[in-house]
Amino acid sequence: MTLYGYWRSSAAYRVRIAMAIKGIDCEQRAVHLVKDGGEQHGPVYRALNPAELVPTLVDGELVLSQSLAIMEYLEETQGGPALLPSNPAERARVRAFCQDIACDIHPVNNLRVLQYLQGELGLSDGQKDDWYRHWLAVGFRALEQRLEASAGRYAFGDTLTLADCCLVPQVYNARRFKVDMAPYPTLNAVCARLEALDAFIAAAPEHQLDAH
Amino acid sequence: MTLYGYWRSSAAYRVRIAMAIKGIDCEQRAVHLVKDGGEQHGPVYRALNPAELVPTLVDGELVLSQSLAIMEYLEETQGGPALLPSNPAERARVRAFCQDIACDIHPVNNLRVLQYLQGELGLSDGQKDDWYRHWLAVGFRALEQRLEASAGRYAFGDTLTLADCCLVPQVYNARRFKVDMAPYPTLNAVCARLEALDAFIAAAPEHQLDAH
Repeated sequence: MTLYGYWRSSAAYRVRIAMAIKGIDCEQRAVHLVKDGGEQHGPVYRALNPAELVPTLVDGELVLSQSLAIMEYLEETQGGPALLPSNPAERARVRAFCQDIACDIHPVNNLRVLQYLQGELGLSDGQKDDWYRHWLAVGFRALEQRLEASAGRYAFGDTLTLADCCLVPQVYNARRFKVDMAPYPTLNAVCARLEALDAFIAAAPEHQLDAH
Repeated sequence: MTLYGYWRSSAAYRVRIAMAIKGIDCEQRAVHLVKDGGEQHGPVYRALNPAELVPTLVDGELVLSQSLAIMEYLEETQGGPALLPSNPAERARVRAFCQDIACDIHPVNNLRVLQYLQGELGLSDGQKDDWYRHWLAVGFRALEQRLEASAGRYAFGDTLTLADCCLVPQVYNARRFKVDMAPYPTLNAVCARLEALDAFIAAAPEHQLDAH
C-alpha cells in the first residue's frame, strides 16, 4: 500500500494515526500542497485523484480518496485494534463525530478555501483568520458538548476510535491559527491524553519526512 | 424513528432517499432553516443537535446527526435493499464518492456559509453565486471523471448505492443556483435515470409536507 499525503494536511494526518494504531506498514509519498502552485494540481497526481486533494491510498488495483473512506477500508481489511465499536448505535455516533470534523469543520477551512478567500475575494489576513476561527468555534462548541456525554480517557469511553484519529489533527490545525481553546476543557483533556500516545506521536506532522 | 429535516436541505434529502429505497417508515418533523432566524438555532432543536444542522435521526435512545452516519446506521440495522456493496474495495469507493459530495462540495455551499459570506463579509449576490458555482464546478468535474469509470445505469454499476442518494440532492441544489450542467454528461445521464425512480420522486423536496 502507498499513501499519498502531506505532512500538514489534517486529512492525511487522520489516516496516518489510524495506520499507526493498527500497526500498518505503508509507503508514504509526499504531495507538496504549496510548492509550484501545489503538486496536487499537477497531471501526475490528478491522474490518481481528480479531486486534487490529499490523501489518496493505493492498494493494488484500488485507488481510494477521502480520509474517512480510507480509514473504514483499513478497518474492514486490516488487522490491529478495531477503531469502530461493534454495536451499530455506537458505531454511528463515532462516525457522526468524525463527520462533524470532516464534513463541517475542516472543509470550510482547508487550504483551497482560504486561498480563494484571499485570492478571488481579496480578504485580508485578519478577515481570513476571523473566518477560520468562526467556523472552528461553531464546530468545537458542538464537539465539546458531544464529548461531555461520550468521553472517557478518549473521545468515546476508554477505547481508541476513528473519532480520536479525526480530533487530534483538527486541534493541531486550530493551534496553527491561534484559536482560543479555553472554552473546550473536555476536548483539550482528551486531546492531551491522545497526543501522549506513541501512535499519535509517530503520525504527527513534525515527524514526517516531508516536514520542514 | 423520527427524522428531523427540512424540505430543501440536501443532507436531509439524502436520508429521505435512502429511507424510501429501503421502505423505512419514519415520522418526519420539519425544522425550518430560515424562518425566525432558523429553528435549528433554537433551544428545542439545539438540545437534540448541538451542531444546529439538519438532519437528526431519533431512534429510541439514539439521537444521531450527520446524514452519512445516519444512512450507514440504517444500512446496518434496517431491512430493504443494501446500499453498500459487500466487497470492501467497492464499499470504499462508494463511500469516497459520498464524501466527495458531503465533505467537499456541500459544506462550502450550505446555508450558513452563504449567510456568512453575505452578512459578515458583505458579498454581493453575484459574488455569492460565483462562490457557489466555483466549488460546484471543481467538485462536479471530479465526480464526472469518477462516474466515467464507475457508472452503469446508476453511479456504481446497475445497483443503487448511497452514492446515488448523495448525487441527486447535490444536483438539485446546483440547479437552484443555475449552475451550467453541460460539462457533466455522465453525471446528468445517471441523475436523470435516478430521478425517474419512485423512491427519488417520493423523497424530492417538492413532495415534502413542509415544502412551500
